[in-house]
Amino acid sequence: MTPQPSHPQAGAAVKAADRAHVFHSWSAQELIDPLAIAGAEGSYFWDYDGKRYLDFTSGLVFANVGYQHPKVVAAIQEQAATLTTFAPAFAVEARSEAARLIARKTPGDLDKIFFTNGGAEAVENATRMARLHTGRPKVLSAYRSYHGATATAINLTGDPRRWPGDTASAGVVHFWAPYLYRSPFHAETEAQECERALTHLADTIAFEGPATIAAIILETIPGTAGIMIPPPGYLEGVRALCDEYGIVFVLDEVMAGFGRTGEWFAADHFGVVPDLMTFAKGVNSGYVPLGGVAISEAVAETFARRPYPGGLTYSGHPLACAAAVATINVMEEEGIVEQAARIGESVLGPALRELAARHPSVGEVRGTGVFWALELVRNKETREPLVPYNASGEANAPMAAFGAAARKHGLWPFINMNRTHVVPPCTITEAEAKEGLAALDEALSVADEHTV
Amino acid sequence: MTPQPSHPQAGAAVKAADRAHVFHSWSAQELIDPLAIAGAEGSYFWDYDGKRYLDFTSGLVFANVGYQHPKVVAAIQEQAATLTTFAPAFAVEARSEAARLIARKTPGDLDKIFFTNGGAEAVENATRMARLHTGRPKVLSAYRSYHGATATAINLTGDPRRWPGDTASAGVVHFWAPYLYRSPFHAETEAQECERALTHLADTIAFEGPATIAAIILETIPGTAGIMIPPPGYLEGVRALCDEYGIVFVLDEVMAGFGRTGEWFAADHFGVVPDLMTFAKGVNSGYVPLGGVAISEAVAETFARRPYPGGLTYSGHPLACAAAVATINVMEEEGIVEQAARIGESVLGPALRELAARHPSVGEVRGTGVFWALELVRNKETREPLVPYNASGEANAPMAAFGAAARKHGLWPFINMNRTHVVPPCTITEAEAKEGLAALDEALSVADEHTV
Repeated sequence: MTPQPSHPQAGAAVKAADRAHVFHSWSAQELIDPLAIAGAEGSYFWDYDGKRYLDFTSGLVFANVGYQHPKVVAAIQEQAATLTTFAPAFAVEARSEAARLIARKTPGDLDKIFFTNGGAEAVENATRMARLHTGRPKVLSAYRSYHGATATAINLTGDPRRWPGDTASAGVVHFWAPYLYRSPFHAETEAQECERALTHLADTIAFEGPATIAAIILETIPGTAGIMIPPPGYLEGVRALCDEYGIVFVLDEVMAGFGRTGEWFAADHFGVVPDLMTFAKGVNSGYVPLGGVAISEAVAETFARRPYPGGLTYSGHPLACAAAVATINVMEEEGIVEQAARIGESVLGPALRELAARHPSVGEVRGTGVFWALELVRNKETREPLVPYNASGEANAPMAAFGAAARKHGLWPFINMNRTHVVPPCTITEAEAKEGLAALDEALSVADEHTV
Repeated sequence: MTPQPSHPQAGAAVKAADRAHVFHSWSAQELIDPLAIAGAEGSYFWDYDGKRYLDFTSGLVFANVGYQHPKVVAAIQEQAATLTTFAPAFAVEARSEAARLIARKTPGDLDKIFFTNGGAEAVENATRMARLHTGRPKVLSAYRSYHGATATAINLTGDPRRWPGDTASAGVVHFWAPYLYRSPFHAETEAQECERALTHLADTIAFEGPATIAAIILETIPGTAGIMIPPPGYLEGVRALCDEYGIVFVLDEVMAGFGRTGEWFAADHFGVVPDLMTFAKGVNSGYVPLGGVAISEAVAETFARRPYPGGLTYSGHPLACAAAVATINVMEEEGIVEQAARIGESVLGPALRELAARHPSVGEVRGTGVFWALELVRNKETREPLVPYNASGEANAPMAAFGAAARKHGLWPFINMNRTHVVPPCTITEAEAKEGLAALDEALSVADEHTV
């Protein structure tokens, strides 16, 4: 990392055009103040004043190989020089090779790849495939989940972003997944949580009508909703229920896939093979928009001689696929998945647990690889969240103060409700992780002030 | 164009991996035989046997500046070297500049840009904005339209791709738009078609309930559905109905925008300013996946202090935005929009009309710029389509034979039902256009054999 020169005037122009013309996601446009970014490299980015931040967010949890990995950048440049774009109905080298490499990494017989531009479209298409494969209308998804913001995906989502309800779609049913720290089932052990969660799901299936259910979709490890690692046996139990009733099991690995959890896919931790698996983000570290669905032989067979009624202009976009090929090869050559596992086990896990022991505001630490959540609470005994569910404005002040403190100490934190997630690039070094943990320590002291 | 060497073995490998692992859009996977593409430049692409095709499709009508425009390629390479990707909540130079340039080109006060990955997500978000802006549930769209394949977009679509109905959404109502050649209103003149189409729309609004209608969405000039240029007065009439009832007017310019019609936007032909305008494809010639919604001041104001409940990981992706900046600048510097207008007026229009006069299979020619449709018929008098609506297999044999003949003569044609569209890059030269028209002449002779 070379020090970055200061260019405040250039930053002001970027900011002015942004404020005049860019309409931002999930925001009240006049109440935001987007920081102008001058550059990024590895685990860091910096603004036009030369202030550098260690990124504990990986963007939106996509930059698994860090920013500006030279080999991925070079691959994009080469593909741009060769064949930047081409229509989806043709066979194109980058598209073929990306599909081949992804299929080699996905578990079981998930060997056909339908490419989309991102995670939401992947979920839309997985749902469509499941409904047409089974001829059934309903899809079950979990509260405490995020699956994207197009109509079907946002309906499946289980967080407040679903609430506006402007695009209500029929056939979506929510159930509760395991979350021992705030158990929906009043369980006290992981085994109990698992057993009761499976009973709850089996009951929900029974009362919704097994023969009306096309799919169950779950984030293998829920991401934005809180990184709740499912207890041993849960995903196997869901798989068994799906098998029993002919329900398509969809695992959403948009956030957890491609190294984030210390395995290629989070499903690999559990030895579970879904019928469909959605991916995006880490597949090419978000260097070019790309997502997709990995499809089992049985579901693919449904569309062998009957047209699949879905598609998009940029399906298998050559530039995006070339970035995926380079990302997967780099991850393999440089042992990046193993690096994520190692840093999680030997650095992040122990250090975060140590922070939890010292800070009254940390109620629970959970995670694996470079995929960790700290649940901040007003009180460790009562587990009352540091801020209420979906708080904003004054009610959210404690989390806002925590975030400001982290940024002041050069750390860009991921914040969702009463949680901060530690989700840096898989390539983060031990020294960088320690630098970030020190800043986190400072910021947690600010959160501590709001405990009772 | 340098002659292309033959690499059949490389092509076989690309094809084999495609067949093993790529799941294609809109297809029965075992009934397709995707051609392996070795390269593309300008208006041409070629396969691994060195066979070259003149592309009358611009991919899927996206490569408005042709393939591999050196300045756009260079801009992608530079952006990749600088800042390939960054999260949407920040101000980033390429994003700011793309929004500023697009806002400068869009009509009226459409000055805020919400970026998506493509057209479907643009339509999803435009619909959401309209519903929340008005607080009303319904959206009216036209039969004979295409708006994308995510849940809301496919419901709004008016072609058979909507039929599987696996993602039915409430509140979508279809009406009939002007199409004089097969008038839904039994009109005989453009003026009559316009008046009757507006009466039909006004009646539909009245019977659906004006206060329940959030938006009317129309492709300014319907694309895949047949390039039916609306008669003078129609879009102005729709605008007036929207104003009368407080309905948001959405124009979908995903296909027609950015030079295709010989203006920056098709709306410019009519002097009509919508409240929301969706775009994708031509915005950066499809070099990197990008779409978006241009938003009027009034709609933007709704989300000034109230959060807009929509977003996506790659909104305003720097690489995609850099390609848009370069594309727009190149189009301006090289007069590409004017070139599209000129080639349409002086070459394509006259030549296509001449073909229509000579070939019994051509029922009608219509279009503007590099956006033309030839309606193929069994009989010019009866106007019976050369193949039935949504035909496949044997019933579609005449169109299949037409397509095969075009390809045999080195022309890659755009085919939808009984139509072929002439939608080459805006940068096509007169010589190239004439080469394509000669091949089209040959292919139409094959279509002629199926007339009665």
